[in-house]
Amino acid sequence: MTLNERLTSYSALVEAKLSDYLRPQKDSGQGIVYEACRYSAMAGGKRLRPALVLEFCRLSGGHIEAALPFACALEMIHTYSLIHDDLPCMDDDDLRRGKPTNHKVYGEAIAVLAGDGLLNLAFETASDPANTLRVPAEVQLRAVRVLSRASGMDGMIGGQILDMQAEEHPISREQLRTLQELKTGALICAAAQLGCLIGGATAEQEAAALEYARCIGLAFQIQDDILDIEGDEAALGKPIGSDAENGKSTYPSLLGLERCHALVDELSEQASAALKPFSDTGMLPELAMSLASRKS
Amino acid sequence: MTLNERLTSYSALVEAKLSDYLRPQKDSGQGIVYEACRYSAMAGGKRLRPALVLEFCRLSGGHIEAALPFACALEMIHTYSLIHDDLPCMDDDDLRRGKPTNHKVYGEAIAVLAGDGLLNLAFETASDPANTLRVPAEVQLRAVRVLSRASGMDGMIGGQILDMQAEEHPISREQLRTLQELKTGALICAAAQLGCLIGGATAEQEAAALEYARCIGLAFQIQDDILDIEGDEAALGKPIGSDAENGKSTYPSLLGLERCHALVDELSEQASAALKPFSDTGMLPELAMSLASRKS
Repeated sequence: MTLNERLTSYSALVEAKLSDYLRPQKDSGQGIVYEACRYSAMAGGKRLRPALVLEFCRLSGGHIEAALPFACALEMIHTYSLIHDDLPCMDDDDLRRGKPTNHKVYGEAIAVLAGDGLLNLAFETASDPANTLRVPAEVQLRAVRVLSRASGMDGMIGGQILDMQAEEHPISREQLRTLQELKTGALICAAAQLGCLIGGATAEQEAAALEYARCIGLAFQIQDDILDIEGDEAALGKPIGSDAENGKSTYPSLLGLERCHALVDELSEQASAALKPFSDTGMLPELAMSLASRKS
Repeated sequence: MTLNERLTSYSALVEAKLSDYLRPQKDSGQGIVYEACRYSAMAGGKRLRPALVLEFCRLSGGHIEAALPFACALEMIHTYSLIHDDLPCMDDDDLRRGKPTNHKVYGEAIAVLAGDGLLNLAFETASDPANTLRVPAEVQLRAVRVLSRASGMDGMIGGQILDMQAEEHPISREQLRTLQELKTGALICAAAQLGCLIGGATAEQEAAALEYARCIGLAFQIQDDILDIEGDEAALGKPIGSDAENGKSTYPSLLGLERCHALVDELSEQASAALKPFSDTGMLPELAMSLASRKS
């Protein structure tokens, strides 16, 4: 199976299951909040995090079906964070993936509640008694813990706070690293960890998966920053190596574009090299390469 | 032990533990979001929900210490809902329990993230491996499920949505009942259920606890509506039985004040009567009476 075939097949599984968790509630008064959740959760996206959950589960010797609810829970958390991030009091974005943002369609109050609702639904999904047919209670409980820590104040939310502070004053490379490891890295690492947990990986495999996730998470973010600048340059004719917009510290502003390109390649190789404890590495090496070389 | 002594002792336990979960993080950049959580979580309040968790656990034969993390998790969820409810795009409140609301002190962005953070922390707390010394993994997992369902879109959030809709057009008594059962009732019922779950109650006791919680939750809400009107009348000299402010349907507007007073008394008696399956009913009958007769 090629990388794209594998990603497409995982995406189809996740979208069918997500659609099931968020099926329209026509006869209930609170149907509108389900509709708002569905609007954002079914708006496409790469489904990178759930794909990592499923692939690490498979490569650890587990059944993809067992990991699917946890993959969906993680995607719900990712989606909730996008809805709240787009709010006027946060990034104030009108568009997300080419469509009006949640609050532009449903209003701010419902967008706040839809985000809250998805976060709750993630934990409802992870603790569903139906999972117990395939996943022991101890393992589900550890999965709940992994999800809540990754998305909480010492994980993604912590990263959002550091990001807000970085808007106000320049930060060091070390601080930027912490920011990214929390803001985008925490959920990507949680994806790898959940897959290993459900699949029954060894401790050595779990450590390798976390290292892989750490490397691709960072490479992904640096590539994002590069694309932001190169896109701006193509569009506006700015000089190479100009500071990021509004003076916010980014990898390119701290290291320069050339060093960033090299760093992305290094991280991508480091990610693949980390996978030694897995006898089959599936789509993971190619995924790391493709994230590093993507143009959008 | 009198009712007040019991409530004070539970409150002290819960506040010490909450303060521990939310201890200041002085050396980390994300310390500000912990501070914002702490501001709202430690701002007093009746601690009714955690007291119900602890009392039902005790009366079911369990150890209060085992229930304490789950009592705190529920209070975190209650607190997150107040922070988000007070936001400008929701109820737009400047004061809560006589103090400036979270977003008035920390700004809207941090208030959104503090609410999100408390919700995550609730699940982190409920799935803490340290709990496993006292509570089997299966039971903790069921507790996570109870918490997430009660606070989610078919629970409290659903009630918030119905409440927003009730601002816009009149609703029937049946719809008002559903609204209240979700908006305030869901967490109160979850409190009773969590206590029973951790304490190892029988199915019959759990059903009794839920009925007790349903009755006091409703009585509590109706009494709130009564106090709103009687407070307004005392302050503004409005005629008895006038509609609730801005035309929103409430129990007094639908049933009249006299019928509401009677209903609160009935519900309070019904709550105590439900407790037959418990050989010791502790503070519960007196608590039901006191909630129904409270003046503030």
